[in-house]
Amino acid sequence: MNERGLIDWIRKRAPRFGEGIEVGIGDDCAVYRPSRGEDLVFTTDFTIEGRHFTLPDYTPREVGYKAMARGVSDLAAMAATPRFALISLAVPDPDFVKPFFSGVFSHKIALAGGDLSRSDKVHVDVVLCGSVPKGKAILRSGAKPGDRLYVSGPLGIWKKRPKPRLDLIETVRANAHAAMDITDGLSMDLDRMLLASGVTCEITAAPPIHRGATLEQAWHHGEDYELLVASPKPLGKPFHEIGIVVAGRPGSPLPPKGWDHFR
Amino acid sequence: MNERGLIDWIRKRAPRFGEGIEVGIGDDCAVYRPSRGEDLVFTTDFTIEGRHFTLPDYTPREVGYKAMARGVSDLAAMAATPRFALISLAVPDPDFVKPFFSGVFSHKIALAGGDLSRSDKVHVDVVLCGSVPKGKAILRSGAKPGDRLYVSGPLGIWKKRPKPRLDLIETVRANAHAAMDITDGLSMDLDRMLLASGVTCEITAAPPIHRGATLEQAWHHGEDYELLVASPKPLGKPFHEIGIVVAGRPGSPLPPKGWDHFR
Repeated sequence: MNERGLIDWIRKRAPRFGEGIEVGIGDDCAVYRPSRGEDLVFTTDFTIEGRHFTLPDYTPREVGYKAMARGVSDLAAMAATPRFALISLAVPDPDFVKPFFSGVFSHKIALAGGDLSRSDKVHVDVVLCGSVPKGKAILRSGAKPGDRLYVSGPLGIWKKRPKPRLDLIETVRANAHAAMDITDGLSMDLDRMLLASGVTCEITAAPPIHRGATLEQAWHHGEDYELLVASPKPLGKPFHEIGIVVAGRPGSPLPPKGWDHFR
Repeated sequence: MNERGLIDWIRKRAPRFGEGIEVGIGDDCAVYRPSRGEDLVFTTDFTIEGRHFTLPDYTPREVGYKAMARGVSDLAAMAATPRFALISLAVPDPDFVKPFFSGVFSHKIALAGGDLSRSDKVHVDVVLCGSVPKGKAILRSGAKPGDRLYVSGPLGIWKKRPKPRLDLIETVRANAHAAMDITDGLSMDLDRMLLASGVTCEITAAPPIHRGATLEQAWHHGEDYELLVASPKPLGKPFHEIGIVVAGRPGSPLPPKGWDHFR
């Protein structure tokens, strides 16, 4: 099947009729018409064979699912509703393309455009656009002294089908001063939030540990699709308090040991 | 230099204060606030070592320039003004990163976000967002019988520093029924425009040929950063008429022989 044939196949199966998408796959650009009072948020993540997954440990479908999950988790961290995806895929073998997109489409997010190419190894770049009411995006830089720090679930396990916490965006938007996802590891991402907010924290409890994981893994392991949230109001289930934000030298009192791609 | 150091370097040098960008590099997502009456257009293009360029034929700076130029050309083809870029870059050697971004920044387009990773070969994915007045994006599907077909300049030569035709977006927006860029080759992209518009054409003149190129290269060579435009009104310089749109079996009367990544 040639490039045009594959694109036609993708176009027919894509959940493309998302709100605001005036022109989807097939022109030089996709066209999106913002609604009034809407801020748009954008995230982009590479997912690379040998780096973020290996074959045949992952099926093409699992790669498609997970490449999307990484971006969806970033949207959840901003308390944003998914609007559309743009997906660039480079593969050694065109047979990878269809099952990959089946995994992508299981997220039920509109596909507005993308690019197909060849490469020696599978490279995926997923861009996701989400929507928040004007001024209501939850940043990582908003934590204030007195806020409680929460994580949204047990940590420490790599998963092939992680579930980004879109179920929590209403709670986060209504309560949080700051939020971020912790896919680079809680210790590193906590440090980033506290640095961005110009504050530090006291740790009040260990993070919840996933069955089969250790405390060390829960703190430093990375690839957790839960949220880290700073909230002035108490948050109930599924949130677990791990600390309290205080004034002081910005950054985490714990040594950050998460994931750095160039270290 | 580690990932955070490189990101700080990029952030300091990026033309980041684009109109509408509320939050740029450094959070889970970038935040863009659309202005009233604005449609947004999006394009995404992979640029891959060994496929779209080879090293050391290209310097890192030239790769950065050209990866951006491909997307900017898509914006020009929609008659859209650039708003911001998102850039994902995977490299074997971190020393590639800084000169690459110097080439990116020479386009003077805001950088709102991106991703850095490692890979065996250089992979770049550039997403560009552009802006058009509501309903004014020029699609490839709008050509009508009676329209004249134009190309915007001489064709047939690969260039390391191609100049996307942003200088023509006002003319295109004011006149064209349809437009697209011809980076996959005039013969293939003409066929695509005519298929999308449900029309065919009569060829009235050969395309202008770049010095050093042949007619064959001008028709089929690909990688031209000029525009193909269908306009009911006559267009002056730099446009060259090549045909007239007529009713008939959709598609080009010439065999399309351009670039197909999976053929």
